[in-house]
Amino acid sequence: MDGGQGVKIAKGRFEAFSDGVFAIATTLLVLSFQPPKLTSHSEASMAEALVGLWPQYLIYAASFITIGIMWFNHYALFHHAKYVSYGALVANLLLLMLVAFLPFPTKLLGAGGLLVSEVFFYSFVLFLISLCFGVLYYVATLRSDERGSVQGFVRSRTIWNTLGLLGYAVAMVLSLIRPIAGIIVIAAIATFYMLPSTVRVALGSGANSNRENP
Amino acid sequence: MDGGQGVKIAKGRFEAFSDGVFAIATTLLVLSFQPPKLTSHSEASMAEALVGLWPQYLIYAASFITIGIMWFNHYALFHHAKYVSYGALVANLLLLMLVAFLPFPTKLLGAGGLLVSEVFFYSFVLFLISLCFGVLYYVATLRSDERGSVQGFVRSRTIWNTLGLLGYAVAMVLSLIRPIAGIIVIAAIATFYMLPSTVRVALGSGANSNRENP
Amino acid sequence: MDGGQGVKIAKGRFEAFSDGVFAIATTLLVLSFQPPKLTSHSEASMAEALVGLWPQYLIYAASFITIGIMWFNHYALFHHAKYVSYGALVANLLLLMLVAFLPFPTKLLGAGGLLVSEVFFYSFVLFLISLCFGVLYYVATLRSDERGSVQGFVRSRTIWNTLGLLGYAVAMVLSLIRPIAGIIVIAAIATFYMLPSTVRVALGSGANSNRENP
Amino acid sequence: MDGGQGVKIAKGRFEAFSDGVFAIATTLLVLSFQPPKLTSHSEASMAEALVGLWPQYLIYAASFITIGIMWFNHYALFHHAKYVSYGALVANLLLLMLVAFLPFPTKLLGAGGLLVSEVFFYSFVLFLISLCFGVLYYVATLRSDERGSVQGFVRSRTIWNTLGLLGYAVAMVLSLIRPIAGIIVIAAIATFYMLPSTVRVALGSGANSNRENP
Repeated sequence: MDGGQGVKIAKGRFEAFSDGVFAIATTLLVLSFQPPKLTSHSEASMAEALVGLWPQYLIYAASFITIGIMWFNHYALFHHAKYVSYGALVANLLLLMLVAFLPFPTKLLGAGGLLVSEVFFYSFVLFLISLCFGVLYYVATLRSDERGSVQGFVRSRTIWNTLGLLGYAVAMVLSLIRPIAGIIVIAAIATFYMLPSTVRVALGSGANSNRENP
Repeated sequence: MDGGQGVKIAKGRFEAFSDGVFAIATTLLVLSFQPPKLTSHSEASMAEALVGLWPQYLIYAASFITIGIMWFNHYALFHHAKYVSYGALVANLLLLMLVAFLPFPTKLLGAGGLLVSEVFFYSFVLFLISLCFGVLYYVATLRSDERGSVQGFVRSRTIWNTLGLLGYAVAMVLSLIRPIAGIIVIAAIATFYMLPSTVRVALGSGANSNRENP
Repeated sequence: MDGGQGVKIAKGRFEAFSDGVFAIATTLLVLSFQPPKLTSHSEASMAEALVGLWPQYLIYAASFITIGIMWFNHYALFHHAKYVSYGALVANLLLLMLVAFLPFPTKLLGAGGLLVSEVFFYSFVLFLISLCFGVLYYVATLRSDERGSVQGFVRSRTIWNTLGLLGYAVAMVLSLIRPIAGIIVIAAIATFYMLPSTVRVALGSGANSNRENP
Repeated sequence: MDGGQGVKIAKGRFEAFSDGVFAIATTLLVLSFQPPKLTSHSEASMAEALVGLWPQYLIYAASFITIGIMWFNHYALFHHAKYVSYGALVANLLLLMLVAFLPFPTKLLGAGGLLVSEVFFYSFVLFLISLCFGVLYYVATLRSDERGSVQGFVRSRTIWNTLGLLGYAVAMVLSLIRPIAGIIVIAAIATFYMLPSTVRVALGSGANSNRENP
């Protein structure tokens, strides 16, 4: 049932372009830091300003790790694929468009005073990234000749993807009540996804299912 | 008849360098967003400012998708090539120079109030990119030993390229009358080129022609 | 004893993503230079301003070479590896997060007047990068099936890593007394690590040990 | 006589890192364009401002093409090499450090009024890049086992390199008399190096010499 599209895209440059966007998006996050504007360029005020940037350091780390994990999931999804369908290419382009946008809400959060609208905006972009990644998963595994090799992986990943999507929705709601609570949820999701057990369960059960679908 | 030039460039690093420029140009588009300068740093004014950025979100998406599609066409053009001629290298460098320039008119459009000169400038750069891509197509398929494998592809692509070129010319003219009409045409072109049918027809008939020219 | 994790990540995209972040972090360093703001835009004041940037040129070079050497060590560490463990992936992500952060303290140093807090901050980030690289070394060589091929290399590298860590700690302490002394130590470390003898001893003894552990 | 160093670096990541820096340096050039600061945000003044940027467009093109050609020469130098020596790695790092710096003098030229000091500074950086590339050529072809395959190429390249070096020296001297003359010389060098005949002679005679040194 994959005859509808008929376009098979080789993986090499698809992955190279995606790796490029992921790498640049993470590295542009540093541009959200600007030398602090001090009233007096004195020793004490500079030290105080640098320490006072701590919420921005945390948000930088949360954004960096979130993009890093997204990159890893992207790697895992396409690792066994031989070709990429045109639908997956379009879904991927939309995902990259949102990932490359993340430095803006990150910068906004760093510059402002943790306003409700800023945290809500940040959570909303992360929610869209998570949603778009779900769509990419669905589209990339539609083709019957690729389904076998990744089916188990996809079945277990669907749970983790849905958890992430729900998590970011919770962060959006919480940010309306208390901005800092939204940030904590987002940092918790990033930390949770970094745990090796998440990966072990997800990839492990995928490996098992592969045996059932040769 | 390819003896005129005599220089054959291996594809690997040519594609890596091009992928890099495409990926960075898309990712630099986010730098056109700056934290809004508010008179009062209050909740309501920030939320209003973020919603008020909607034309900039659309322009960001149009630029991102346009570069993304350009990347895909670049991939398709060189996918079957084994070597790149020196002429194609120079045409490619000029194309990349224009693609890497796109973040500037994009930023300009976002910052301003959709002035005629800004939309005309943006359409003009897209027109030049489209023109330069046509030249690259022509040059890259000049060599007789590569013509066979891509001839059908090129014949059908020529129509799509010319359509794009005309579309951007229309956007330039329309922008002089009503700037927003120019933006709508550019967004429509980006959406049109994302349709799988465009790719199916283009690549599909190319596959057929290949059989005729073994 | 590597059964605990069970996740083996292919090297290709891991290295591509890392190369991207290293390359972008070095290239973003140039953004720490801004056209000098002159009271009179005259010939003499511009020439004076450009010459007066000399401490910034040195700091740019120190940061660039430090990231460049870090990239080389990263290359050497994973050159013989066939797979990357999940633990190494996480350690690598934290390392890249710190490397990508370096343009900020670099920019800070360039803009300011070599304040104690700025040099201390810069030394501290370099100390963290060095520490994180040590952790990556340790994690990447934990797995028994990879230990053989890199053991000799790791044993000799451990000494160099520890020296770097100590050097940056010294720079931190010195910067509290005299900022310029901290900068000199950091530049000396970068120069020292560029010496071919350092590499010869490190890689050379690794090559010898490989013979003992076939 | 290559036993002195004993370190052979595989080409893959060396080229990937270099390609990354070249691609990013070219793409960062666009950041030298800032939305013009207009006294009245009117149609006429914006159109005038965009047209008035023409010297900046030329300088952008000159810098972009210069880095692009440098990339091509880098590709040609290492195309036949199997390994890279440590000395070449260090020379390459210094070259990349200067290439990645080019966006700063480019931005400076665009922002200012074509001052003597700005054009001299720009020419001087191009001179250093050219010099550093000459050193890289020399170091990369020192090893006897690589000399055979590239000797003819190197012999003919040496002439072109020296011409470039002299050209930039002339641009430096001329910029002291008339800044615009320096710019014209730099643009002429970029155009000259883009001519296919330059490449044909250089690569062509290299191919001939290879037959003599099997």
